[in-house]
Amino acid sequence: MNKLLQVDFHYQGPFGEEMTQMLDGLAQSINHEPGMIWKFWTENQEEQRGGGIYLFEDEACARSYLAMHSARLTEMGIRDIRGIILDINQPLSKINKAPL
Amino acid sequence: MNKLLQVDFHYQGPFGEEMTQMLDGLAQSINHEPGMIWKFWTENQEEQRGGGIYLFEDEACARSYLAMHSARLTEMGIRDIRGIILDINQPLSKINKAPL
Repeated sequence: MNKLLQVDFHYQGPFGEEMTQMLDGLAQSINHEPGMIWKFWTENQEEQRGGGIYLFEDEACARSYLAMHSARLTEMGIRDIRGIILDINQPLSKINKAPL
Repeated sequence: MNKLLQVDFHYQGPFGEEMTQMLDGLAQSINHEPGMIWKFWTENQEEQRGGGIYLFEDEACARSYLAMHSARLTEMGIRDIRGIILDINQPLSKINKAPL
């Protein structure tokens, strides 16, 4: 069953276009992660948060990505990492036109 | 500019089908909230979290929904509510096939 992975962390930038340029290669590589269907890249400059919302094929793929990604972020000096794997309530999400 | 709203909170159920039946009417009503484009209903029974990931037309709509929704959840006795409004990095999200 598909799972959502919700990740966010303390992030001091770069944001916006500069972030796009810096992380283009990382985004390309994420397309090759096992079971990754899509990712929204999220950012909030005011609250200094970065993150992502991902759809994965199943829980095992989401779990192993989260472990790898958390280790990578920690190596980059990033702290306050919060990652949760979530079920999607499909019927309620359908009512609210979620892109399932 | 469209904004994501990420909300989660301590939630002891019901989950799954029972949750669907209980909250069908609430889901219908959410389609009438100003600026609401879509919502994923999220749940994690093991970690006792409920929540949602929403797309809103703009920040003002996301902010007023979050204020209303937090008050409603609090009235329902729900605690540990976490809500963040996030920008989407569009070019990076496009690379990763996010449903923009």
